[in-house]
Amino acid sequence: MAREGTLVRSDWLATEEPLEIQVFDSQSGDLLLTHVTMRTPGSDFELAAGFLHAEGIIERAEQISDMEFCVGPSNRDRQFFNIVSVRAAGADMSNREGQRFRTASSACGVCGKASLDELVLRGLMPLETTARIDWETLVGLPDALRNRQALFAATGGLHGAALATADGDLLAVREDVGRHNAVDKLLGWLLLNGEVRVRPMVLVVSGRLSFELAQKAVVGRVPILAGVSAPSSLAVDLAREFGLTLAGFVRDGACNVYSRTERITVEATLPAVL
Amino acid sequence: MAREGTLVRSDWLATEEPLEIQVFDSQSGDLLLTHVTMRTPGSDFELAAGFLHAEGIIERAEQISDMEFCVGPSNRDRQFFNIVSVRAAGADMSNREGQRFRTASSACGVCGKASLDELVLRGLMPLETTARIDWETLVGLPDALRNRQALFAATGGLHGAALATADGDLLAVREDVGRHNAVDKLLGWLLLNGEVRVRPMVLVVSGRLSFELAQKAVVGRVPILAGVSAPSSLAVDLAREFGLTLAGFVRDGACNVYSRTERITVEATLPAVL
Repeated sequence: MAREGTLVRSDWLATEEPLEIQVFDSQSGDLLLTHVTMRTPGSDFELAAGFLHAEGIIERAEQISDMEFCVGPSNRDRQFFNIVSVRAAGADMSNREGQRFRTASSACGVCGKASLDELVLRGLMPLETTARIDWETLVGLPDALRNRQALFAATGGLHGAALATADGDLLAVREDVGRHNAVDKLLGWLLLNGEVRVRPMVLVVSGRLSFELAQKAVVGRVPILAGVSAPSSLAVDLAREFGLTLAGFVRDGACNVYSRTERITVEATLPAVL
Repeated sequence: MAREGTLVRSDWLATEEPLEIQVFDSQSGDLLLTHVTMRTPGSDFELAAGFLHAEGIIERAEQISDMEFCVGPSNRDRQFFNIVSVRAAGADMSNREGQRFRTASSACGVCGKASLDELVLRGLMPLETTARIDWETLVGLPDALRNRQALFAATGGLHGAALATADGDLLAVREDVGRHNAVDKLLGWLLLNGEVRVRPMVLVVSGRLSFELAQKAVVGRVPILAGVSAPSSLAVDLAREFGLTLAGFVRDGACNVYSRTERITVEATLPAVL
């Protein structure tokens, strides 16, 4: 490593481009929603489906009658791939931002409790499963994710997320400049590949465990969420309310578990202290 | 470190609570906008002002005639502190999401170029300054930021951002569970403390350099943006278009500079290779 001096060379960068998600009612053809997110191109249909599921706008894959890149006058250039047009039946627009927190709170109120209540109002039940994961398998997942992050290796600039079985096998890996997008791509993969229900799976993320990531795990019915960094207070509140096992600081062969610890099995157990 | 076994103990968590920003027209009293963001409480007025500035809704502090926590029926509990009500004159609502990219693009187009054009449309000029920063000072900034992150030290779960002088003195440090919020708090601090103009300052962030963070640096008229991780392709495009010096991977006594390298001075210079 040069401590002093400069070196001029080329570098690989993670691609970031806007994606516009357009939702049309499949009956009336009305435009219900346009949403723009900055994302790394790839898995864009999954991203659109996962975003709509995470936001509570659709619940099942069958609601999507059609999904395509925008066909229009500029369809010969790359912009063509920056718009996904979704035709959906029975889209629920009642949760859209601005209204979301008001619904669940008093006249002038907005608080973490309201954010949790909004998920209850959406009919999301606590995660019930007898699934267990061995502690050693769990703490090995971030390295397994990192080893599969092809773009990260080249650019150092991408968040990764993966769905793994309780045996530690990676089912799907997605990368994005936005950490929420990487998880939305996985939610979309789940939604588009069958009925969304609680399965013995782990959602592994490369960063911090925010309220929104915990919410996405609950929406995707994934009972265990693991990340290499810290959870927020509201993420822990949500995990406890919805029966999500939340494992933070999963690195260097150790982790902290903040909720539903019984799903992580350890052979040798030290006496509890503090 | 316990390789096996469990330990039950209490842990400090970074607080995450929703903040609702309400914007009213100071003349008519009309509600123009409600926006909810998940944030770490603290510096909420700065966060509101910085968000409105970053989004192009207001340009100057004088447009804000009043800013207060919501007064209403629930003002005796903590929800009181989760709503900031802003009365603003001449708020520009033309850039709001959904419309933002359409304004600048063709009928069916959305692309990185449109995102850049939107900033041109907002009248933002390239950053012109003779400010320089010594390379050794620059690479020391992330450690200086980390040393000032009081909450991070306790929780490990907060993004940090700072404004520093070209001499390496930290002018303001803000933390948040959301990296964009930490920078919005700094933008608000800048806006509320005087005229926003190009000054010899560096914006230092603890994470990745996304398009949106580069955009915020340009809006706040900060000519140098430094981060410990990678930039995205669109962040580099924006930096080059708006004359922003973008320094990534600022760690371990080194950094990569992607644009306007002349602002970073190095005494000993190696021959350029590659």
